[in-house]
Amino acid sequence: MEQAISQRAQALPASAIRKYVPLSDALKKTGVSVFHLNIGQPDVATSHLFFDAIRAFHEPVVAYENSAGNPLLKKAISNYYAKLGLEVTPEQCIVTSGGSEALIMAISLVCDPGDQIIIPEPYYTNYNTFAMQNQVEVVPFRTRLEDNFAIHDIQNLEALVTPKTKAILICSPNNPTGAVMSAEELEQVCAIARKHNLFVISDEVYREFAYEGLQSTSLLSKPEMKDLAIVADSVSKRYSICGARVGWIASRNPEVMAAALKFAQARLCVATLEQVAAAEIIDKGHDDIERAKLEYDARRQLAHKMLTQAGLKCGYPQGALYLMVDLGVDAEEFTRFMLTDYSGIEKDKETAMVTPAANFYKTPGQGLTQARIAFVLETPKLEKAIRHLLEGLDEFKKYAKK
Amino acid sequence: MEQAISQRAQALPASAIRKYVPLSDALKKTGVSVFHLNIGQPDVATSHLFFDAIRAFHEPVVAYENSAGNPLLKKAISNYYAKLGLEVTPEQCIVTSGGSEALIMAISLVCDPGDQIIIPEPYYTNYNTFAMQNQVEVVPFRTRLEDNFAIHDIQNLEALVTPKTKAILICSPNNPTGAVMSAEELEQVCAIARKHNLFVISDEVYREFAYEGLQSTSLLSKPEMKDLAIVADSVSKRYSICGARVGWIASRNPEVMAAALKFAQARLCVATLEQVAAAEIIDKGHDDIERAKLEYDARRQLAHKMLTQAGLKCGYPQGALYLMVDLGVDAEEFTRFMLTDYSGIEKDKETAMVTPAANFYKTPGQGLTQARIAFVLETPKLEKAIRHLLEGLDEFKKYAKK
Repeated sequence: MEQAISQRAQALPASAIRKYVPLSDALKKTGVSVFHLNIGQPDVATSHLFFDAIRAFHEPVVAYENSAGNPLLKKAISNYYAKLGLEVTPEQCIVTSGGSEALIMAISLVCDPGDQIIIPEPYYTNYNTFAMQNQVEVVPFRTRLEDNFAIHDIQNLEALVTPKTKAILICSPNNPTGAVMSAEELEQVCAIARKHNLFVISDEVYREFAYEGLQSTSLLSKPEMKDLAIVADSVSKRYSICGARVGWIASRNPEVMAAALKFAQARLCVATLEQVAAAEIIDKGHDDIERAKLEYDARRQLAHKMLTQAGLKCGYPQGALYLMVDLGVDAEEFTRFMLTDYSGIEKDKETAMVTPAANFYKTPGQGLTQARIAFVLETPKLEKAIRHLLEGLDEFKKYAKK
Repeated sequence: MEQAISQRAQALPASAIRKYVPLSDALKKTGVSVFHLNIGQPDVATSHLFFDAIRAFHEPVVAYENSAGNPLLKKAISNYYAKLGLEVTPEQCIVTSGGSEALIMAISLVCDPGDQIIIPEPYYTNYNTFAMQNQVEVVPFRTRLEDNFAIHDIQNLEALVTPKTKAILICSPNNPTGAVMSAEELEQVCAIARKHNLFVISDEVYREFAYEGLQSTSLLSKPEMKDLAIVADSVSKRYSICGARVGWIASRNPEVMAAALKFAQARLCVATLEQVAAAEIIDKGHDDIERAKLEYDARRQLAHKMLTQAGLKCGYPQGALYLMVDLGVDAEEFTRFMLTDYSGIEKDKETAMVTPAANFYKTPGQGLTQARIAFVLETPKLEKAIRHLLEGLDEFKKYAKK
């Protein structure tokens, strides 16, 4: 008998977002252009500030960095918060390998196996993996496209609290919906958390991408949440340096931070050079954020306009790099169709790829006709991609009837 | 009532190696030189190959790398193994954030909460944290300084196997002992593993540092262990790029690798630039390894000679960057003494710092008089450091009698 891998490893979901990559790779090999509306990889050029700092690194040895993070980077993070009017000391941050590690740490710090964590759905699919790695159960709280994914009916969220509930995980601006939580929504979530003594884990990696003059409210702006608030953040999308793998976990709860430090010490440190460069870009890269935001905003408006003018129901994205659209057809089948049978593949040597949204929902049967559109292509390409999507949709409806 | 953090987080041990850092930091602030024999941070200069590759990176966007690793890096790893006479395909490796992440993944892939893993002690203390993060119990198998930490009496190791045992974790060349497992020892461990259907996780990050013409045998050289062998490796020490955070997990078990990929996809990727540079240095950095090895070998001989000539019992390190010495006094108290009351602090403005070895043992009461010496200082400094150690020891014995 062969030795089996662990049950937790067997239970891990495969990446839903990457499921169609083999099909798109095969197409590309035949010379077809695939417009990727499916991935959250920004195309905005990385600032020279980052490269300059990397190239200016002149230590003789690329040594381990401090486990809690490069002191200059932690100071830069603290200063960044100060500019937002938030007092977060360097000791209240630990540098992590992207926002991913911050979230893995946060879940592991507050939950034991069998514990539950409430997450408004649809949500970023990797939350499932982070929870399952830690034997934690995700309890989804339904939000709806027709409500623009707002957290209505907070008493329904409260009804999900059990003795096993340890935390509520929120993400604003949201991936995959683009929704920005209002101050009232955040206040309601915090009130429930305080009432039931739950941690709130806030994924704020898209914080700077709120449009139309909106400000995304950080959980750290709530002094009354001092002991219950844990924030995950990252430089990845903000400065278009996803491959730098620099993020952080921030909390004013000293017990949380002391335990986070122990996790951090065990895995030694985050990449040394990138921390130096991240400090530089956080200190001086504000204009880069503003430029990127203008660009994403233009794309967001274009995508939303084209899709709604075509009669499709869309969430209205006030932030992040994503919108949710109801295609009115089975989104999995349609995604596959666009990579196999869509006529544009032959005719124009072009097609578009979206992410079917069912995997962003935990409740079975939800979101089957929805897809996530990432606006990470420059405007002319985005326009082309959405045109293919709409043409493909018309075709698919006829094709599906056959 | 304040909400408590998770039990697993509460149970995490603080880093034993870093326990005395505040004392040494305080000394340094008063102008005292502290010779660090306590940390495994190589001082050998990082090769220009690494920096050249980093500086030559000219993509406009620092994008996410493939979750499984940069294809060129995976090819370089495969070629590296080929030069060792081992066939390991790029698909049988996944790039990790240092050897640390490879070990965390490996333990999580084969063990569920409550499972056991047998580790010869003394062992690298972070194995405890990696196990506890995963609710896995470490069962120590005693090895002894007087046996040079060899795995004798394999039947005693076998006697530790229970229905909960999922794996044996080995590390050769060893941190903290410097012991290199003989081919016979490895064969015996593998035989037990096959007999009881256990995984063997082999930490091979020090593989290239075996001295006196010894070759450290990789677990991957055992075709009969195909489905049970998981190797953790890293470029950190080998090329003196600890801060690059590039390692890998390798296995010929497709189920293990498929699950590892799911873990890898959830945390997205390892730092993009460092992977490019690591590929370059693995391809072309062989001379750097040889140079470093010669240097470490000279230090190893010096340290061992000075300590044994002073009448101290030492392990004889055939590999890695460490040796274990029996100080004959309480090693914790002595370490503290060297940072507080040793006369050299006043007289020479110099002292030396070692790592007390008790934390490398899980069995209570073991290793209390032992310390780990890392030979990561260039020879003149190393000589000075050990002289301080020996002088301090004489002083401490008088001091302790008072």
